[in-house]
Amino acid sequence: MTSTAVPPAPAALPAGLLAYSERAETQLARLLPPPDQAPVELHRAMRYAVLGGGKRLRPMLVYATGRALGAGLEKLDAAAAAVEIIHAYSLAHDDLPAMDDDALRRGRPTCHIVFGEAMAILAGDALQALAFELLAADASLDVSPAVRVEMLRVLGAACGSHGMAGGQALDLAAVGQRLDAAALERMHCHKTGALIRASIRLGALAAGLDDPAGLAALERYGHCIGLAFQIRDDILDIEGDSEVIGKTAGKDAANDKPTYPAIHGLEESRRLLRELTDQAIAALAGFGDRAGELTQLARFVAERAS
Amino acid sequence: MTSTAVPPAPAALPAGLLAYSERAETQLARLLPPPDQAPVELHRAMRYAVLGGGKRLRPMLVYATGRALGAGLEKLDAAAAAVEIIHAYSLAHDDLPAMDDDALRRGRPTCHIVFGEAMAILAGDALQALAFELLAADASLDVSPAVRVEMLRVLGAACGSHGMAGGQALDLAAVGQRLDAAALERMHCHKTGALIRASIRLGALAAGLDDPAGLAALERYGHCIGLAFQIRDDILDIEGDSEVIGKTAGKDAANDKPTYPAIHGLEESRRLLRELTDQAIAALAGFGDRAGELTQLARFVAERAS
Repeated sequence: MTSTAVPPAPAALPAGLLAYSERAETQLARLLPPPDQAPVELHRAMRYAVLGGGKRLRPMLVYATGRALGAGLEKLDAAAAAVEIIHAYSLAHDDLPAMDDDALRRGRPTCHIVFGEAMAILAGDALQALAFELLAADASLDVSPAVRVEMLRVLGAACGSHGMAGGQALDLAAVGQRLDAAALERMHCHKTGALIRASIRLGALAAGLDDPAGLAALERYGHCIGLAFQIRDDILDIEGDSEVIGKTAGKDAANDKPTYPAIHGLEESRRLLRELTDQAIAALAGFGDRAGELTQLARFVAERAS
Repeated sequence: MTSTAVPPAPAALPAGLLAYSERAETQLARLLPPPDQAPVELHRAMRYAVLGGGKRLRPMLVYATGRALGAGLEKLDAAAAAVEIIHAYSLAHDDLPAMDDDALRRGRPTCHIVFGEAMAILAGDALQALAFELLAADASLDVSPAVRVEMLRVLGAACGSHGMAGGQALDLAAVGQRLDAAALERMHCHKTGALIRASIRLGALAAGLDDPAGLAALERYGHCIGLAFQIRDDILDIEGDSEVIGKTAGKDAANDKPTYPAIHGLEESRRLLRELTDQAIAALAGFGDRAGELTQLARFVAERAS
């Protein structure tokens, strides 16, 4: 096995996945409160935080998982919107001056720069509530009440102190600290991994999958691409172009944040990224040809330019 | 009818309601993540924001409603905890420097004073997720999956941009403005009223009530005591003692906040408070003697000293 210092060319998004990303955009615009409905300023801030940018990776995971299991797209819209709304709320809060203090996100001023800190906090809070309300109320999500309850439980666990919010707390505590490899992995498994794994699980539940072996295979896939996503993020922070990644490159090192390249070196980080991508794809073996789009997504996560 | 300028003596909490308040405290301590479980700082901040103070009005409403309809207390614990966890998260966020900038709450330093702003934001976020997770997962909540989904929908709607978060946005927009009586009522119906009405509805749903007339009567009761609660709050801000109310008295006038006394005058505010309390109690007529504790709660809301 020769290891190369030249990174692979960034992947273009295959047409099927691009269509999922565009569908998510349309559904989010439809499911968010209208911008002219009171309270107007709050609804504008909520829409600003969610719409007009972003890869829509989490909705793509919901759609690709659900389609692999034979579900129609309209059955997957509520879950796709819910996970992206949660992701967008977490970014609005993470960007606040008291947290990461970021002024630029997806190439635009962050929510608190445009609407003020108080409104950015409230918009995030209202978005979190909306995600749960959507999953509870959306009529197109054609599952039994018992499955719907399980989906709400999965989303709640992914967002809370043992999921995304817990990961952000570990991240805050890690600034300026020397983390070992295990602590870094634990932080990312919570901070970004929990919602990525939940996206896949929600897609599977919406599609009616209740086979434990199938769910476990998808869980392994989600675990691997969640970590791969973060390693690619860390590499892009070193090698990426601020214009392309839509946020300030070099910020991790400037903030003394622990990253995969800082702990493992750039070359070993690339090797880990390839290994995790291979493991993610291998986990899908039991799904055969149906998992084609999930395989494409694993490659996209590892090779994306932004 | 003679109107008196002398306010009634503050009500002591009847023993039955006090027992509900104490039960809520025990359940919250049990259902929140342990303080020695990782991430430790986040879990400590979450527990600090919720435990050790507060009247537990919303849990009392869940328990009193559910008991009036014949439910056992253990069937009501999850809903009681969920509404109080939501209330506590909203206080932690409202107290932030970017919002109301309060250093004192329930007689103690506020969450961000003790744990820092970033952790107070995260604790609030994680608490909101926990409330939904509890309602989705708690095994003692002995209802059908369909009723559980409806409870999750009711909680989501009460928390979001058409409920509590929307009311807080209206409140922010109102500082320094002259609101008319209708706009003031609309703001409070969202900001505090939505979660109070949801508490009653969740208690009713947990107890298995599905009679539309009964639910509508409870909705009227909730609407009236929600507004009564706010009027009493505004009066206490003028007449109360900071030591007793556990926060800085006179803050509304200092911040030029619109209040019932500012718009209607103190005497008319007292009359409105009595009228709403009478209407709340009248709405319970169909429940007969079973509604005794809900009647006591309406009186307590109107006469409380803190």
